[in-house]
Amino acid sequence: MGTLLDGIKSPADLKKLNIGELNDLCAEIRGVLIDSVSRTGGHLASNLGVVELTVAIHTVFNMPRDKIIFDVGHQSYVHKLLTGRMSKFHTLRQYGGLSGFPKRAESEYDAFNTGHSSTSISAALGLARARDLSGGDHNVLALFGDGALTGGMMYEAMNDAGHAKTPLILILNDNNMSIAKNVGAVSRHLRRLRVSPHYFKSKQVVEGVLNHIPLAGKPIARMIRKIKRRIRRLVIPTTMFDDLGFTYIGPVDGHNIEALIACFEYSKLEKKPVLIHVMTKKGKGYPPAESNPEKFHGIGEFDVRTGKTPPSKESYSDRFGRTMLKLAAQNDKIIAVTGAMPSGTGLEAFAAKFPKRFFDVGIAEQHGVTMSAGLAAGGYIPVIPLYSSFMQRAYDQVLHDVCLQDLHVIFPIDRAGIVGRDGETHQGIYDVPFLSHMPNMRILSPVNYTQLDEMLEYAVYKCGGPVAVRYPRGSDELETPIPPFDGELSLTLRRGADISIITAGRMSIRAVEAADALAGHGIKTEILLLTSLKPLDKASIIAAAMKTGRVITLEDSVKPGGIGEQIAAILEETATKCRLKVFAVPDRPIPHGSVAELDKLCGLDADNIVKEVLKWQK
Amino acid sequence: MGTLLDGIKSPADLKKLNIGELNDLCAEIRGVLIDSVSRTGGHLASNLGVVELTVAIHTVFNMPRDKIIFDVGHQSYVHKLLTGRMSKFHTLRQYGGLSGFPKRAESEYDAFNTGHSSTSISAALGLARARDLSGGDHNVLALFGDGALTGGMMYEAMNDAGHAKTPLILILNDNNMSIAKNVGAVSRHLRRLRVSPHYFKSKQVVEGVLNHIPLAGKPIARMIRKIKRRIRRLVIPTTMFDDLGFTYIGPVDGHNIEALIACFEYSKLEKKPVLIHVMTKKGKGYPPAESNPEKFHGIGEFDVRTGKTPPSKESYSDRFGRTMLKLAAQNDKIIAVTGAMPSGTGLEAFAAKFPKRFFDVGIAEQHGVTMSAGLAAGGYIPVIPLYSSFMQRAYDQVLHDVCLQDLHVIFPIDRAGIVGRDGETHQGIYDVPFLSHMPNMRILSPVNYTQLDEMLEYAVYKCGGPVAVRYPRGSDELETPIPPFDGELSLTLRRGADISIITAGRMSIRAVEAADALAGHGIKTEILLLTSLKPLDKASIIAAAMKTGRVITLEDSVKPGGIGEQIAAILEETATKCRLKVFAVPDRPIPHGSVAELDKLCGLDADNIVKEVLKWQK
Repeated sequence: MGTLLDGIKSPADLKKLNIGELNDLCAEIRGVLIDSVSRTGGHLASNLGVVELTVAIHTVFNMPRDKIIFDVGHQSYVHKLLTGRMSKFHTLRQYGGLSGFPKRAESEYDAFNTGHSSTSISAALGLARARDLSGGDHNVLALFGDGALTGGMMYEAMNDAGHAKTPLILILNDNNMSIAKNVGAVSRHLRRLRVSPHYFKSKQVVEGVLNHIPLAGKPIARMIRKIKRRIRRLVIPTTMFDDLGFTYIGPVDGHNIEALIACFEYSKLEKKPVLIHVMTKKGKGYPPAESNPEKFHGIGEFDVRTGKTPPSKESYSDRFGRTMLKLAAQNDKIIAVTGAMPSGTGLEAFAAKFPKRFFDVGIAEQHGVTMSAGLAAGGYIPVIPLYSSFMQRAYDQVLHDVCLQDLHVIFPIDRAGIVGRDGETHQGIYDVPFLSHMPNMRILSPVNYTQLDEMLEYAVYKCGGPVAVRYPRGSDELETPIPPFDGELSLTLRRGADISIITAGRMSIRAVEAADALAGHGIKTEILLLTSLKPLDKASIIAAAMKTGRVITLEDSVKPGGIGEQIAAILEETATKCRLKVFAVPDRPIPHGSVAELDKLCGLDADNIVKEVLKWQK
Repeated sequence: MGTLLDGIKSPADLKKLNIGELNDLCAEIRGVLIDSVSRTGGHLASNLGVVELTVAIHTVFNMPRDKIIFDVGHQSYVHKLLTGRMSKFHTLRQYGGLSGFPKRAESEYDAFNTGHSSTSISAALGLARARDLSGGDHNVLALFGDGALTGGMMYEAMNDAGHAKTPLILILNDNNMSIAKNVGAVSRHLRRLRVSPHYFKSKQVVEGVLNHIPLAGKPIARMIRKIKRRIRRLVIPTTMFDDLGFTYIGPVDGHNIEALIACFEYSKLEKKPVLIHVMTKKGKGYPPAESNPEKFHGIGEFDVRTGKTPPSKESYSDRFGRTMLKLAAQNDKIIAVTGAMPSGTGLEAFAAKFPKRFFDVGIAEQHGVTMSAGLAAGGYIPVIPLYSSFMQRAYDQVLHDVCLQDLHVIFPIDRAGIVGRDGETHQGIYDVPFLSHMPNMRILSPVNYTQLDEMLEYAVYKCGGPVAVRYPRGSDELETPIPPFDGELSLTLRRGADISIITAGRMSIRAVEAADALAGHGIKTEILLLTSLKPLDKASIIAAAMKTGRVITLEDSVKPGGIGEQIAAILEETATKCRLKVFAVPDRPIPHGSVAELDKLCGLDADNIVKEVLKWQK
């Protein structure tokens, strides 16, 4: 499919197409996106929204000489299709295949790796300063959604860039959504701008554009005439971007290639910090995604005809949401706080049922955590579920505002451990090491939904300081029956005299697999399940080590600072006689792939554990 | 001294004073501040700037029922003097004495602990939401400087608060400084506002104030008449705070108690998010501080008459700055980036000599780090010195933007380890654990200035990815001569057969002290100095352990995830036969005091090490 798209070997080929052909190309790209993502899964709605925008960018600018930074980065699929990665697009998010995010290692067209929100202006400013220092004259662009503008880094960067007057082109892709519906005062400010016809510069400058663009002159002239007609106003409202030192251009229809090209050509001439406000529709061109952009934000396989996804089991996130409803019904001190993830973290029903006790702060984990600390200081019990890798953004707030003050804030950590297809920027493999060194913090780690419920209840009623409850992406439950949880730090999952495996959470499933396999070799395994990762159950750890004299620790976090090393210190300091082997995620970036593939890559699969144990036996 | 101040047992006593007496009180407070801080050291300039402001706040509001959050918190001395802590003020920042920051454990008037910048609006919003949920009607205030507005959290919080319309009183203390001269577009915006006579509300509302304030009516009426005279303008400029949903009030002279009282009385009536823009002079009333507010921001003992401080030795920060000048003169790829700390980190001379290669990004560590990543991706070598505890704010950016991409960014970590008098929020005791689990990161740890120079040079020329070089506050150098550094991971500082101490950085001084003391007991100590904390020198660690069979690790970081636990894992996994004892900072908040007092508190002093070793000998 896609004869026009087949002809695009690099963005240079776009420059040969006229507006009609570019629009046809956009239709072809949408076909490829829908067809391919329906099979690989991925971020569909946001990419459907930026088809014309991306095509217009690559038509006007000269990548890779010019540089573009994609904020978050999952809206880079169209960019990948236009920059020589069409033939590999079916490998998207597969182990060894294309990443779902920009990767410098993947293409020279990817100027900077992204994954977490709100980094794009900072990175672009750095690249622009490097350009200026080395006497270059290429353009540096940052493309970000209005959701990213709820993150504070963006203001830090605009404060710096707007003051420095470094030429920089910011493209605000305003779809009035981050992942969920957008929140906040800035969002309201943007809504006001959307309906107030701005203009993209004074008459003289507009004519300057016409004189400077020899080839593309005609459609642009038409465009500019249209825009001039719309600016008969006495007062030009000022935007907060102007206050921050940027020239505001917009709003522009993000599905009108002609208008976009005109704006971008103009922005090149400005030679100062410019912000172009582009209005797009998330999911554009695919009705199921248009009507449910949140579902199609990040999606697994789906039926192209209906937009339906295969039925899925209740996930840990779903279960967390369900339990929160119960807890909040019993206790009116419980508050839910989310960083733009009401659906992803399972809080949608809570938001509907307890709107006054639900706060969506935007993609603003830092503020969300400190605001929760304020709620706790005011006598409430805030519960702020965060994806493990996004909690990194609030490291200082968790430590400085919650832990040092020993405030009762509950941190359900979703997507903890290996997350799979989102890859290295999203792996939840750092939370255990970083929370382990925060004073007053407790870390609980359930192995099934019942234990998740019990631990949440325990965190609400039996704890008075910070508590984290970490659980994996998806629905992997340990099937072995276990006794009810009532604050025990550990429990013995299986008894055996030959070797002790000390593990927690999802890894307990691998431990049981390994123990079963070892039984086939006549080796009897003791499994100590850590229900608490902080504090650790020293007495039980020492007892398990003394019993067998051979200890394996197994965790789905990075090794440095993890449970294995802490256990090693306990055993060394108590002079417990035993051998130890730590199985943990190695200290290097972990790419994308299925969770099973990545477990294997990290040596956390039962086969590898068995192999290592058998070596010891020799 | 201070008959009026002696009469202020609680803020309620302020309400009995007239404007003239309040002004006299302010003069008395200035006297106490200057006299007392000249003896204890502390943050003088910022407190001199907020004397009238704090007095006016406590005159209008009813603390502790009303709540105030001090951003950063070191401008809370006047608040401490007015809330029953006058008699303890001479113990400020002394071990066991008053903290230099608000502490909930110290007084019911301290509503929330602060220390790091830009948290106040988030915390205040949490307290305000708690108030609304529980049906309270007290006021919640956040007091912050314009410097704090360079931190992104403030926008995250305003975005949330301005949208939610929760009543909240923000007081912007605009002295056009953070610690150094302020930077950025917001600062420029504020400068514009400072000179444009705003007004503090439409006529009707102003009259509403008059009608609602029975007692204080007269002076306020005078004030409001004055203000009304100043607002004869056709166009009222809009501020970015209005765009964010706040009612902007100001600018107000922050040294005019009458005007301040009028504004605060008005703000109480608003019942929505309000921002009061107060203009103050840092150091006000003490000429040496007025003329050099940066020096008097945080200062040690000084001579009240002259403002002179005793001559001090070159510090690690000074030396870093000097070395940067040399390195930058040789290599035009070297860039310096700072988060509002040109003087604190030693970069003033660099800024003067290489203005184009120097970027002060404001109190914006997140942006600073990612902008540096952009510079590195653009082919430059950014060097971004950060205080250890402030680097926490950029945890995610160091990991996600620098380490995962393996970019060549150099992180000199200043104030690493125990920092002393600033106390728990400022202790630099987490950087080793959190950097240790970041992929591609290297951590170097010099013991003297020569080695700092060598390591910086090594970081520039011999490393291609992220490198941290951590050094303590002050000037503690190891006096033992050591060979030049050329990338070795460790070196043997002293040879001995009885016990091995493995240590690094400033702790090497304690190790030598302990070894000397142990020699008196006939115990010969081997000291292995780790010049690299990541990677660790496994072979030398194992060799040192095997040689003596008794290992002590000694570090000035928290124990969980630190060097000691990592060494324990190395020894356990290699089945090295030895005993181990980890000396590290315990896993709890470490208060303020002198560095020597805190070393002792943490059990890191030579006496304690000797005592433990002698126990082993039995």
